[in-house]
Amino acid sequence: MYPLPEGCFAPRNQWYVAAWSKDIGREPIERWILDEPVALYRRESGEPVALHGRCPHRSFPLGKSRVSGDNIACGYHGIQFRPDGSCAGIPSQRAVPKACAVKSYPVIERWDWVWIWPGEAHLADPTLIPDHFQMGATDPAFKTHSGWYALIPGRYMLMHDNLFDLTHLPHLHLVSLGALSETKPSRLDQGPGWISSTFDYLDIDPPAYAQRTYGYSGRVDRVACVKLLFPSVHVATEEYRKASADPAKPGELLGGTRHFHAITPATRHSCHYFFAGASNANHPDPEFYRTSVTNVYPTLVEDISATTYIEEMIQKLGHVPPEILLRADTVCVAGRRMFEDAIRAEQAGKQVPRMTGPVDPTNSLLRQSA
Amino acid sequence: MYPLPEGCFAPRNQWYVAAWSKDIGREPIERWILDEPVALYRRESGEPVALHGRCPHRSFPLGKSRVSGDNIACGYHGIQFRPDGSCAGIPSQRAVPKACAVKSYPVIERWDWVWIWPGEAHLADPTLIPDHFQMGATDPAFKTHSGWYALIPGRYMLMHDNLFDLTHLPHLHLVSLGALSETKPSRLDQGPGWISSTFDYLDIDPPAYAQRTYGYSGRVDRVACVKLLFPSVHVATEEYRKASADPAKPGELLGGTRHFHAITPATRHSCHYFFAGASNANHPDPEFYRTSVTNVYPTLVEDISATTYIEEMIQKLGHVPPEILLRADTVCVAGRRMFEDAIRAEQAGKQVPRMTGPVDPTNSLLRQSA
Amino acid sequence: MYPLPEGCFAPRNQWYVAAWSKDIGREPIERWILDEPVALYRRESGEPVALHGRCPHRSFPLGKSRVSGDNIACGYHGIQFRPDGSCAGIPSQRAVPKACAVKSYPVIERWDWVWIWPGEAHLADPTLIPDHFQMGATDPAFKTHSGWYALIPGRYMLMHDNLFDLTHLPHLHLVSLGALSETKPSRLDQGPGWISSTFDYLDIDPPAYAQRTYGYSGRVDRVACVKLLFPSVHVATEEYRKASADPAKPGELLGGTRHFHAITPATRHSCHYFFAGASNANHPDPEFYRTSVTNVYPTLVEDISATTYIEEMIQKLGHVPPEILLRADTVCVAGRRMFEDAIRAEQAGKQVPRMTGPVDPTNSLLRQSA
Repeated sequence: MYPLPEGCFAPRNQWYVAAWSKDIGREPIERWILDEPVALYRRESGEPVALHGRCPHRSFPLGKSRVSGDNIACGYHGIQFRPDGSCAGIPSQRAVPKACAVKSYPVIERWDWVWIWPGEAHLADPTLIPDHFQMGATDPAFKTHSGWYALIPGRYMLMHDNLFDLTHLPHLHLVSLGALSETKPSRLDQGPGWISSTFDYLDIDPPAYAQRTYGYSGRVDRVACVKLLFPSVHVATEEYRKASADPAKPGELLGGTRHFHAITPATRHSCHYFFAGASNANHPDPEFYRTSVTNVYPTLVEDISATTYIEEMIQKLGHVPPEILLRADTVCVAGRRMFEDAIRAEQAGKQVPRMTGPVDPTNSLLRQSA
Repeated sequence: MYPLPEGCFAPRNQWYVAAWSKDIGREPIERWILDEPVALYRRESGEPVALHGRCPHRSFPLGKSRVSGDNIACGYHGIQFRPDGSCAGIPSQRAVPKACAVKSYPVIERWDWVWIWPGEAHLADPTLIPDHFQMGATDPAFKTHSGWYALIPGRYMLMHDNLFDLTHLPHLHLVSLGALSETKPSRLDQGPGWISSTFDYLDIDPPAYAQRTYGYSGRVDRVACVKLLFPSVHVATEEYRKASADPAKPGELLGGTRHFHAITPATRHSCHYFFAGASNANHPDPEFYRTSVTNVYPTLVEDISATTYIEEMIQKLGHVPPEILLRADTVCVAGRRMFEDAIRAEQAGKQVPRMTGPVDPTNSLLRQSA
Repeated sequence: MYPLPEGCFAPRNQWYVAAWSKDIGREPIERWILDEPVALYRRESGEPVALHGRCPHRSFPLGKSRVSGDNIACGYHGIQFRPDGSCAGIPSQRAVPKACAVKSYPVIERWDWVWIWPGEAHLADPTLIPDHFQMGATDPAFKTHSGWYALIPGRYMLMHDNLFDLTHLPHLHLVSLGALSETKPSRLDQGPGWISSTFDYLDIDPPAYAQRTYGYSGRVDRVACVKLLFPSVHVATEEYRKASADPAKPGELLGGTRHFHAITPATRHSCHYFFAGASNANHPDPEFYRTSVTNVYPTLVEDISATTYIEEMIQKLGHVPPEILLRADTVCVAGRRMFEDAIRAEQAGKQVPRMTGPVDPTNSLLRQSA
C-alpha cells in the first residue's frame, strides 16, 4: 500500500520495538503489531513475553486477560497459555487439543526497549538487533533520556518518509525549531541493513534551538545524519562545534546529540512511535539532558500531525495519491526500495539476505562514539 | 456471518423481545431489529404498535416522528400511517397511492415485554411465545424485578455463545462473582424449540455471592440450568439447598432464582439485551428481591464487555476468525445449529417446523415451579 | 448516487459558493468541495485564491499550510505554489519539474460570497453567477443579514430535496414555525438555469411566526416562492400583505423577505450550507433585520436534522432506498432532472447548454424588486 506498491505492507522477518520496558509488567497489555493483536506481559522472573493476542477458542483478547504465574489465562473461559504459546490447561476439560495454542513471538529486552520478531520464529537472530552501544543509547559517553511513546493514526511508512528527508525541518518545524538552513538534499549512504542521509553546514549562525541548548551564538559548524537501522530505528546524530577555519582541525565541541526514532507498524493505518535522546555535551546540570530531549517533543508532535494529515488526506481521497518525486527524495526512494525488496523476498519465500554481522558503523558520526 | 456460516444472519419468522413495556409510550422510539428500522409507540388505547421505521416517501425515520391519535405522522411531510401500516392520509394530496404504506409488524405485549415478529405476518402464532408462567416471570411463587436494558455493540450470536456455555463463570466473572466451581461441561438437553445446559455441584462450600444472598455459609447443593427458549430468551434457573446426605431427600431450600436474558439482533453488529430476575427465596424483606437482581448487573457488564471485545477483535482482524471448539461447547454447537437450521429453512422457503404446542417444560427445574 | 441515479454525483462545470467572504483571510483554510480538497486564502491585495488542497509531492494539505506573499508554501517541505497553481519554487532544489503544480480554481467574490468553479477553468463564465441585485442581496430596497454556515453530514441533494418541496413546512417545522397552511403542492415554473415552486394563500389568519415578525394578527394574503438558481442558490421569497378583497388591488405590504440558501457538495456524504436573509419591511429598528433572520435558525436546524437522519438511514440500510413520489414532488423530480441532465452532459463530453444571459427573472416576486 502507498507509499509502497499495492500488496506490500511491511517486512515480517525483522526486529521491531514493541514497547518501552517500563510499559510492560505483570498486567498484560494489548498492542497491535504488523496488523496482529499481541499480548505483552512479564513472567515472574521479569522476562517479557509476547503472545498472539487472540484466544483461539472464542477470540477474546489475551491482552485484556489475566497473568497467572508465568502463563496467561484467557479472561473468558480461563484457558491458560504458556510463554511459548502452548496450552497449559483448559479448566473445563482434561484433554488439550493440539491446535489449542497461540503463536509466541520471539522477544528480546535490550536497554529500555522490548524487541519483537513478528515473522517466522526460527529466523529470529538476536544479532540483527542494532548495537545499542554504537547507537549511543548505552555508550557511557552519552547521557540518555527515554520513554516517549505515541500511537499514530497514520501508516508507518509516512513516518519513515518523514525521517528519510530532512528538508522538511525548516518548514514543518518552523514553529518549534525556528529558521533553519536545510535547503539542499542530503548525501545518501547505504550498506547492508542501513541507509543514511548526511549533511553539513559549515561556518553558519547557529539556529535558535542550538543557541538555546548550547548557550553559544557565535559561528558554528553543524554536521547531521539520520541513519535507518532497517527496518525500525532511525538514529539521528547531530554535532555542533565552534566554526573552524581549518578543515583538518575541527573546532571546539559544543555538543552532540543522538535521537532515536523507532517506528513499528501497528495496523495498516496506524503505527507505534518510540522516541529517546542522548547527548555528550558534558553539561554540569543533569537536568540539561532531560530538557534537551523533552524540548524536542513539540517537533515530534509536528511530525505526527503531518503523518495524521496525510493519512486523512489519502483515506478521504479514496485512491492512491499520485506523487511527484524531488531530488531530496533520493534517500526516501532508496529507503522505500529497501522495504519493498524485503517484503518481495519474503513473499517469494526467499530468505531475507543475511546482513553481514552487526550493523556496520560506516557512518562517521556513529563511528566517533565507538 | 460468524459464528454462523456466511449468509446466515438471523431467523425472521420468530418472536423476539422488542422492548420493555415501560419503554414504549405515546412518543415513538426508533429501534433497529434484525437490521430493519422499527418505530414503536402505543395507540390511544395503550396497545403497542410496531411499524417499519422508514417513511417510503423520503426515508425520514418514523421513530423520530409524531404520534397522532392511533397513527404516526412522518416528521418530514406529515404522511400518516395507521397501526396496520396503511396510509391514512397525505397532507399535500387527496389520492393515496397503494404503494404508500409501511410494513406493520405483529406485536404482542405479555408480562413486561413487547414481543415482535420480524418475518411474514401470517405466520405469527402467539402460542410460540414462551409461557411466562412456566418461565417463572408470572408465577406467583416468584417475585420478579425487571427492566434492565442495553444496546450491545456486538453481534447477537456472541451473547448466545456466552449463555450457552457457563464454564466462563469462574473466569469472566471472577471479579463480580468470586471463585466458582464450574469446571466441567454442562449436560445438554434439547427438544423442539429449546435447548438447555444443566449442571449440579453437590455438597460444596457456597460461592461468595450465594453466601451474601442467602446468609448461609454451610455446605450446600447447587443445581443450575440455562434453557434457551428459541430464539430469544434464555431462562437461567439456579437452586441452593442445604447439602443433603440422602440423594432421595433434598435439603432445605435456601432459595431459587430465575434470570431472564432476552437477546434480539439489532443490526449485523449490534444487539438488544433485556434482563430480569425472579426469586422464590421467601425472604421477609421485599427489597431483597430487587437487590438480588441488581447485584447481577456487574456480571452482565462483564458479559457485555466480552462480546464488545470479541466484536472489536473480529472487525479489526478483517476476516472470519478460526475457532477451536472445546467439549464445553457441546451446547454452543447444538444451539448454533438450531439458528442455522431455522435460517436455512426460511431461505429454502420451507415453513419453519412447527413446535409441538407451547414450550415443553422438560427441564426439571422449570417443572418444579409449575 | 441517491437521490440521483448511480454514477451521478454533482455537476462540476458550475459556480458554487465556497465560503463567506469573512471566512477567508491570509491564513488558509481547508474545505472539501465536490469531493476535492481545496485550500482557500487571500492574496496580499485581498483577492481570494482557491487551489487544489493536496501538495503533489507528499499529499500534505495546503489548507493547513502557510501563505507567503501571494503564494502558499506547503507546510511540510515548503514547496511554493502561486495563485495560478504553478510552482514558485522548491526550497531543496533549483529546477522545478513541470508536473509540480496544483489546479487553480476560478474564484469570484461577489457580495458576501466567494464563488468557486470546480470544473474546467476555461468554461468558467462569470455571467453565470446569479445576479445578486435581482436576488435581493444587493438591492438597496432590502436590508440583509448574512454569515450563517454549517457543514452538514448528509449528501447535498437531500438539502435540495428539502427546498424543492415546501409541503414539509407544517410538519418538520411544527415546533419552530407553528401551524401552517401549506397543504397543496406548489406551482412549478422552470426556465434555463432555474426552477421554482410558488404558492399563495389568500385571506388567511397569519401564522404565528408572521404575527411575531410583523405585529399584525388580522387576515392576510401570503405569497411565497422558492427559486433555485441552478445549481447552488435557492432564493426563497415571501410576502405578507393585509388581505385584499379586490384581486386587482393588493393590500398594504406588511413585509417581504428573501432567504438565500446556498448548497455546495463537500464530499459524497456531506455538504456546505450558507444562509442569509433580507427584508424590505421598512421597519424603524435596525435590529429587526438581524433578528428576523436569526429567528429562522431553529428552522434551519430542523432541515439539517432531517438531512442528517435520512443520510444515517440510507447508510445504515446499506442499499438505495426505494421511494414513493407524491404530487408535491413535481418540482423535486424536475429539479433532480436538471442535476442529472447537467451531469450526463458533462460525462458525455458535451458543453453544458449555455444559459441565455443572466438568470431570467421570470418569477414575479423576483421581478418586483427589480
